[in-house]
Amino acid sequence: MNLTEKTINSELVYKGRIMDVYKDDVELSDGTKSVREVVKKPNAVAIAAIREDKILMVKQFRYAIGEAMLEIPAGKIDEGETPLECAKRELEEETGYTAQTWQPLGFVYVSAGFTNEKIHLFLASDLEYKQAKPDEGEILECYEYLLKDIFDMINSGKINDAKTICALLRLQERSKC
Amino acid sequence: MNLTEKTINSELVYKGRIMDVYKDDVELSDGTKSVREVVKKPNAVAIAAIREDKILMVKQFRYAIGEAMLEIPAGKIDEGETPLECAKRELEEETGYTAQTWQPLGFVYVSAGFTNEKIHLFLASDLEYKQAKPDEGEILECYEYLLKDIFDMINSGKINDAKTICALLRLQERSKC
Repeated sequence: MNLTEKTINSELVYKGRIMDVYKDDVELSDGTKSVREVVKKPNAVAIAAIREDKILMVKQFRYAIGEAMLEIPAGKIDEGETPLECAKRELEEETGYTAQTWQPLGFVYVSAGFTNEKIHLFLASDLEYKQAKPDEGEILECYEYLLKDIFDMINSGKINDAKTICALLRLQERSKC
Repeated sequence: MNLTEKTINSELVYKGRIMDVYKDDVELSDGTKSVREVVKKPNAVAIAAIREDKILMVKQFRYAIGEAMLEIPAGKIDEGETPLECAKRELEEETGYTAQTWQPLGFVYVSAGFTNEKIHLFLASDLEYKQAKPDEGEILECYEYLLKDIFDMINSGKINDAKTICALLRLQERSKC
C-alpha cells in the first residue's frame, strides 16, 4: 500500500527558540486532503552512563509537565556538532563525568505523530569524574542507581521518561548479545 | 534542592487543532529568569496487544518525520473518555480486534523538555477479531510479529518509536513478576 503523504502547502505558524511550528496542507495516498501540524526541533542525545553496575541519573524540573523528573543525561545537538560530540559534552556538563568508552544505541522518535524530534542514544562506560558545569538556566541533581533498581523503577512507574526507558531496553538487549 | 520553576507570564502563541503552543516567562529556583516554550497536547494511549506470542503492529506514514513507521496501535484520548475506553476504541479502530483482558502498563512522558504529552500504556490480551475502521485521514497497514522478533527489531533499530519500546519494556518486566 502506498502510505506517503504529499505536502501541498506549508505555513510556519510559530518561530520559536527551541522549536518551529508548521501547519501544512497535505494530500493522502487515497487523494483526500488533510492538515498536519508539526513541531520541528533539533535532534538530541541521551546517555546511559554506567559506573560499576550503577547508572547515572539526573533530576530536573520539567516545566512542560510541572514536576521534577528522573531521567538519564540528555540535551540538544548544537549546530555543527555530531551526536557523539554532543553526548560527550552533555554528559560532562550535567554529571561532571567523562567516559573512555562510547557505544551507539541507535535512536528513537519521541512522538512522530506531531514532532520530528529524534533522540540518539548512547552507552558510556569507563567513567572518570571531572567537574559538572550545567548550562545557565539548568538546575539539576545527580544520582546513581543500581541497574536492577532502575528496571524496578521503570516497572513500578517511578521512572516515566520515554528516552530513559528506550535507552535502558536497548542497553539490556545489547548486553544479551 | 528546590527545583521548581514559577510562571511569571504565559502567552498562547499558536492555537492549533491537535496542539496549543505557549511561550512562558519563568523564574527558576535560584531567582534567574528564563523562557519556556511548551506544546500542550491531549493525553494519548498505546496498546501492546498480544495474540499467541505475537504482538499486533501498525504501519502508517508519519508526516512529521517524512516516513512510514512501525508502531503499536495508539491514539489521542477524546474529551470525556477514560484512558482505558480510548485504548479499547483505538485498538478496534486500527486493528479490528477487541480484547477480553486489559492491564495497565503505566504511562510515559514522551519528551518533557517541551511537551506535556503523556501516553498511557496498556497490555491487551484474549483478542477477538471484529472489523477495522480507521479514522478518516488515517491510512494504515496491520501486522503481527513474534514477541522475540520485536525485541530483535528494537535492538537492531528497525523499530524506533519511543512509546512502542516503552510499552514492550514494561510488558517484559511485568512478565517476570
